Amino acid sequence: MVVELIAVGTEILLGNIVNTNAAFLSEKCALLGLSLYYQTAVGDNEERLAETLKTALGRSDVVILSGGLGPTQDDLTKEVAAKVMDMPLVDDPHTRRRIEEYFKNIGSKVVTDNNWKQALVPKGSKVIDNKNGTAPGVIMEKNGKIAILLPGPPNELIPMFNNDIFPYLNSLQPEIIYSEMVKICGLGESLVETQITDLIQKQSNPTIATYAKAGEVHLRVTAKAKDSKEAKKMVKPVVKELKERFGRSVYTTSESVTLEDTVIGLLKDKGLTLTTVESCTGGLIAARLTKVPGVSEVFKQGLVTYSNRAKRKLLDVKKSTLKEYGAVSEKTAKEMAKNGAFITGADVCISVTGIAGPEAVEDKPVGLVYIGCCYKNVVTVKEYHFNGERDKIREWATVHALILMRECILEG
Amino acid sequence: MVVELIAVGTEILLGNIVNTNAAFLSEKCALLGLSLYYQTAVGDNEERLAETLKTALGRSDVVILSGGLGPTQDDLTKEVAAKVMDMPLVDDPHTRRRIEEYFKNIGSKVVTDNNWKQALVPKGSKVIDNKNGTAPGVIMEKNGKIAILLPGPPNELIPMFNNDIFPYLNSLQPEIIYSEMVKICGLGESLVETQITDLIQKQSNPTIATYAKAGEVHLRVTAKAKDSKEAKKMVKPVVKELKERFGRSVYTTSESVTLEDTVIGLLKDKGLTLTTVESCTGGLIAARLTKVPGVSEVFKQGLVTYSNRAKRKLLDVKKSTLKEYGAVSEKTAKEMAKNGAFITGADVCISVTGIAGPEAVEDKPVGLVYIGCCYKNVVTVKEYHFNGERDKIREWATVHALILMRECILEG
Repeated sequence: MVVELIAVGTEILLGNIVNTNAAFLSEKCALLGLSLYYQTAVGDNEERLAETLKTALGRSDVVILSGGLGPTQDDLTKEVAAKVMDMPLVDDPHTRRRIEEYFKNIGSKVVTDNNWKQALVPKGSKVIDNKNGTAPGVIMEKNGKIAILLPGPPNELIPMFNNDIFPYLNSLQPEIIYSEMVKICGLGESLVETQITDLIQKQSNPTIATYAKAGEVHLRVTAKAKDSKEAKKMVKPVVKELKERFGRSVYTTSESVTLEDTVIGLLKDKGLTLTTVESCTGGLIAARLTKVPGVSEVFKQGLVTYSNRAKRKLLDVKKSTLKEYGAVSEKTAKEMAKNGAFITGADVCISVTGIAGPEAVEDKPVGLVYIGCCYKNVVTVKEYHFNGERDKIREWATVHALILMRECILEG
Repeated sequence: MVVELIAVGTEILLGNIVNTNAAFLSEKCALLGLSLYYQTAVGDNEERLAETLKTALGRSDVVILSGGLGPTQDDLTKEVAAKVMDMPLVDDPHTRRRIEEYFKNIGSKVVTDNNWKQALVPKGSKVIDNKNGTAPGVIMEKNGKIAILLPGPPNELIPMFNNDIFPYLNSLQPEIIYSEMVKICGLGESLVETQITDLIQKQSNPTIATYAKAGEVHLRVTAKAKDSKEAKKMVKPVVKELKERFGRSVYTTSESVTLEDTVIGLLKDKGLTLTTVESCTGGLIAARLTKVPGVSEVFKQGLVTYSNRAKRKLLDVKKSTLKEYGAVSEKTAKEMAKNGAFITGADVCISVTGIAGPEAVEDKPVGLVYIGCCYKNVVTVKEYHFNGERDKIREWATVHALILMRECILEG
């Protein structure tokens, strides 16, 4: 089945927003095994939108349109699709009530007239409720072609796609698609690929796809089968095999769980508290950990000791250590982690000191980073050499701090 | 003049990468006063790319293609464009030498055979040197139509566009475009717009366009004139007027300067040092400040006092304050800032305490944030109510911490 994307919105053509919906929808379509050959963005212009939609319906089975479903006059995706597919707009009482409810829930008393425009739907279409906004989604089927209309804001589009459109598209196919994600940290992409060459070569169903992230590799295992029960059964032994091959490097098999979630979860499970002491990452590790709601149970404080003086004053790093070995050294990372744990009374303390650039310091190269982790009074320090610019080095150091922390706790 | 974008790459259609080039190029084209009606993404497929390029050349004057200029067999943008425009590929000795130089500079001794594919260019085209990679850019002009081929990686595309393609497109037009950016912080978009309604209404050249960011509004003043000297002369009084109307809220008129750059610059100019003490932002302020190279001159340390105990132990916040007013209170923000400055000996200390959600704390609502700034022993505390989810509240609190710090130093 061939699918195609059309993003509607003059703000995209002006470069005011990045079309992230296209990447989200494309990845999901790939996962569904659909062929996607074109993504188009077009403005809120009746003629051009109609032309684009006709072309798309001519060459693809399913066209997914996003955006242009707002209440104002310049939003015209639904109107144009209704005309092109010859399915005139009619009032949908269910959506009318839902919009009333929506405004009541957000405490707004006045529903303006133009909001009722959003309760109009193409005759004979399937209406998809929007749980995060007023514009409904719409599925239009006619003459073997399908147009799917989704609201533009990602916080409306993403849940609507995941909850309703994904299962709908899945149900159209002769075989059901089911996938699970195996997330691996601390191993490089090529190393991971080498270790599963045999699996990739011998299997066509399920398939294994690799995605490289900073410090992580995600493996998606996808099976096609006549029903979801059978597909799950096919995915299961492959996921098991991957978990066996990569052991502790697999930190989750859940799509929505991040590395920081895992680390915080591990600390919670073991009843441990944590301190971060950062130099070149400058607060990034603390900021990333505190993205996780409920982190306060384990994370009590963090220190950003950017200067040598701060390393001495706040962390009691010895003057002689800084003088003899330098701020960016194994010795300094070790003292930072050990003293950080002692001073704050935390069970775990992670330290980072390095050279993020753009200029080399202490005759040491840009990208040299030491990460220390103190757990049960034992300090482990590792040396890293990261490539790239300042931002990238800081990001990689942050990820590797989380990875080292996880390793030390699991092994300690 | 009508321009159109085509991004080439199967990785875009698979959703593996977000097409940020489209937003970048679109914003620049808008700035040049060009009309852009379509953005398309298509895979590395000869037939579909040729079809897409023909359609684009049929309805637009200039087509900008990005991606598909790599050395491997599946990269075929140049080959397809050469065929469609009937400008056969020929060897370009200049590019050949540049590629040799490039490999020499990165320390690679072996240039593989397929790299020489990148030295082929359409006959009669203009070759644009790539300073950050091997693939050259190409400008193809024929029968009143123009195709511009750019490398896909943003770190190659962006400088090439800014240095070579922008001036080229500018020179094609009867009038030159010139613009300056006025960056405003701490005022909402609608307030800013209200204050310049008269300017926007009365002027068509120069124009003023507004861009809303978290806590900031950027105003782009753009003039069209017969040459750049005249355009600059037209922009000047408008920028001056905007600076007068918004006074200190204007933090820069330089396109590349960020709010954190400005704050760090201000501290440097005044020879001041800074400490951050953060609760709900959890290190984000420190992380944002340390994005700026050379920040170590003014930023010596930051504390993330996430728990009440950490606020007491590390910052000497009174137990009675926490008990009576709560951790999220004006009183606590005040003590955090004052004590943070005292304990670390910094000239300026910025404090943040708030409720980022998802759940309310101490019977206080999600989004309530207090930000304190201690400067010259005077503490200013402001109360904020931010909307949105955890990430957004933390981001807005971070921006407003920078804004408050700037205000206090300028006024202090």
